[in-house]
Amino acid sequence: MKDNKNKRTLEVCFSPALFHLCENIEESIVVVIDILRATSTITTALEKGAESVIPVSTIEESRFYQKKGFLVAAERHGKKIDGFQFGNSPLELIANGKLNKQNLVITTTNGTRAIRLAKNANKVVIGSFLNMDILIDWLKTQDRDVICLCAGWKNKFNLEDAVFAGALVYHLKDYFDDLCDSAIAAEKNYIAAKDNLKDFLKNSSHYKRLSQLGVENDISFCFSVNKTQIIPVLKENCLVKM
Amino acid sequence: MKDNKNKRTLEVCFSPALFHLCENIEESIVVVIDILRATSTITTALEKGAESVIPVSTIEESRFYQKKGFLVAAERHGKKIDGFQFGNSPLELIANGKLNKQNLVITTTNGTRAIRLAKNANKVVIGSFLNMDILIDWLKTQDRDVICLCAGWKNKFNLEDAVFAGALVYHLKDYFDDLCDSAIAAEKNYIAAKDNLKDFLKNSSHYKRLSQLGVENDISFCFSVNKTQIIPVLKENCLVKM
Repeated sequence: MKDNKNKRTLEVCFSPALFHLCENIEESIVVVIDILRATSTITTALEKGAESVIPVSTIEESRFYQKKGFLVAAERHGKKIDGFQFGNSPLELIANGKLNKQNLVITTTNGTRAIRLAKNANKVVIGSFLNMDILIDWLKTQDRDVICLCAGWKNKFNLEDAVFAGALVYHLKDYFDDLCDSAIAAEKNYIAAKDNLKDFLKNSSHYKRLSQLGVENDISFCFSVNKTQIIPVLKENCLVKM
Repeated sequence: MKDNKNKRTLEVCFSPALFHLCENIEESIVVVIDILRATSTITTALEKGAESVIPVSTIEESRFYQKKGFLVAAERHGKKIDGFQFGNSPLELIANGKLNKQNLVITTTNGTRAIRLAKNANKVVIGSFLNMDILIDWLKTQDRDVICLCAGWKNKFNLEDAVFAGALVYHLKDYFDDLCDSAIAAEKNYIAAKDNLKDFLKNSSHYKRLSQLGVENDISFCFSVNKTQIIPVLKENCLVKM
């Protein structure tokens, strides 16, 4: 896509399996997006006072941290893993109320893997509807290419992640010289969704999957917009407030 | 996606690099889509009297067939390859006028690789705006899952392929029990595009690439709808009229 290095480009990557095709990753800001629910959970943890959130890829790594006394949130296939304090649920973190100054370890099916995958980018930040406007305002001020990395579901395209990527395109496109095809496509979905997010997304595969698991309240929370002014940013393998 | 084997599902795959994630390929109909220009060129070749079109992956294979006396269309990165009769251009085939009863060998950057990738499906058919309605009518009558495989550009998402996949979703969704997330997203793009395809697609990366190569007429031709009643289908590595 990038023919001219002086152009600022905005790219959307619909699957971690396609991330290696993105250009210029080392010089770009990567926004990791896993609306249901990892990036919403991470943003909520920092909002509720956690010192840092440590994304790890495996359950084994999570156990290692747990033995050292860390709080751990662990989820696979939408479900909390037995033996850990939390699942991948922002409302569970809020209800707990004891995150202040804690370092929370988190492992999820898709989101935490996407964060690790992006670690060689110039900056990795966390996007969710919860911190949408503050993230958009910050991205406007940066003079770098931006890649929106949708975590998807086991490498497949996910509607809610694409819609949020489209929201970023919708609000940021005037600040960029070049949009990739997937950015154009994502924006069209945000335009179709924006007046009633929950209604639009209720047909998505992961909405249906999580509804069957009885976490409707979490879903509604993850679709609520601008609940926080926090932008989580990756610093030496930990997510902290920018 | 497929929780119940009695449900008929319609899936869109936005990149050949994600095709292995599709379920139930062997039992499905795969519609290969490379609007600019492979699947438009193949459909045109059969419309103009070719006996068959033989998709091959490499330039070496194309040379092998050329030495045996076959007509060959060969393209890489949007450009015709020197030494072959044709590029990947439907208008060039029409202008030539000598396809009658010929077997045409074709190799292109994306489309022919996607066709080969899909070869283990129950059926592989070729989709383009040129044969849109006849393809839709035929798919309505089939009692199988359908996967729309977008050839993309070097494994990246391509807008014009996604828009055509969305056209299939728009017209076929009432015949299916389950749409994957990418089918929902593709349809939203078709809805945004359908009243002025060329205008919508003029911002796509491949439109811009081909415009710079001076093949605007080919692009317009590939966006023209329902020019033929032909559905190319793969039979033993050859595409023939259904």
